[in-house]
Amino acid sequence: MFLSFEGIDGCGKSTQARLLAEALRAEGRDVVLTREPGGSPGAEEIRRLLVEGTGERWSPETECLLFTAARRDHLERTIRPALAAGRVVVTDRFADSTRVYQGAARGDLRDMVDRLHALMIATEPDRTFVIDIDPATALARGRARGGGEDRFESLGLGFQERLAAGFRALAREYPGRVRLIDGSGTADDVAARVRAAL
Amino acid sequence: MFLSFEGIDGCGKSTQARLLAEALRAEGRDVVLTREPGGSPGAEEIRRLLVEGTGERWSPETECLLFTAARRDHLERTIRPALAAGRVVVTDRFADSTRVYQGAARGDLRDMVDRLHALMIATEPDRTFVIDIDPATALARGRARGGGEDRFESLGLGFQERLAAGFRALAREYPGRVRLIDGSGTADDVAARVRAAL
Repeated sequence: MFLSFEGIDGCGKSTQARLLAEALRAEGRDVVLTREPGGSPGAEEIRRLLVEGTGERWSPETECLLFTAARRDHLERTIRPALAAGRVVVTDRFADSTRVYQGAARGDLRDMVDRLHALMIATEPDRTFVIDIDPATALARGRARGGGEDRFESLGLGFQERLAAGFRALAREYPGRVRLIDGSGTADDVAARVRAAL
Repeated sequence: MFLSFEGIDGCGKSTQARLLAEALRAEGRDVVLTREPGGSPGAEEIRRLLVEGTGERWSPETECLLFTAARRDHLERTIRPALAAGRVVVTDRFADSTRVYQGAARGDLRDMVDRLHALMIATEPDRTFVIDIDPATALARGRARGGGEDRFESLGLGFQERLAAGFRALAREYPGRVRLIDGSGTADDVAARVRAAL
């Protein structure tokens, strides 16, 4: 079983991924909790190129290639071996992030993103949870975290709003796989909604 | 005018790229001498991921994505602006290296390499010089250089021989663009052959 969490920066998806992994482990399942960009030693090195620096450090096209390189490594070295061993994989972001960040919100590159995905990744989660919250609230949370991984947050509120609209559109595009989860309330409130949608 | 030098590690192509750039400058041309992987600040950062570490650090597919990311940045930030300004660009490696290194010598991935190139790069030099020398001689030279950029050299002589055969095949595949240059003799001997082929 391959599960992903998606949404804008600061939406609470990392917390929800962790809570779901803990709940599944408490039920006796063998769970790998991972994240993108990153999730394997090589992909974590590529992550640093992607999440640090200025917003204009890479063009959307180059950014898309770097995310796909990191995803290919993550898939080969972490996700596929875990699934082959019968483990559950819970990832904080996967290919839907590229569809929204590079495919929709940074320019109209969705066709390029789809071709690159079909050529190099060609794998989808069994279920995807999009945590949907107000972009201004999410941006304030993301900025409050600090730590230097703020390249995408630095692109501003208008960018976050385009992202949020892009994630909602994905839930309509893939109704069988993607579930839109109301991200308001406490973390436990949201976790209960995730479990109901699983 | 966009010119590239290609060949196996240690074949002398970096020296030849420099000599050609100097000769063209001496004739009054405005020349940008550049290299891959690298050639722009972002691409040079990606270069470190590619040329350092062990041979198995990346799969051929991930490697191909990283080279394409570096090439896209190099093209956007260095090559296209220089050509648009009427300058001559001389590069030490371009897309032919990916065709041979990832497309032929590390597995039969040429179809994937070609699709990725068509989608993300879609640019060819006006002329390409392949410096052709004995793989054992080239490998000894490459290893003698040291400096830690030896990930591809670490793949051994059999790999270098597959590379040399791959570059010769490219010269047959693109007879209009690619010129095979005998790399034996002094650097000046080889430079004279390059000038004759330009």
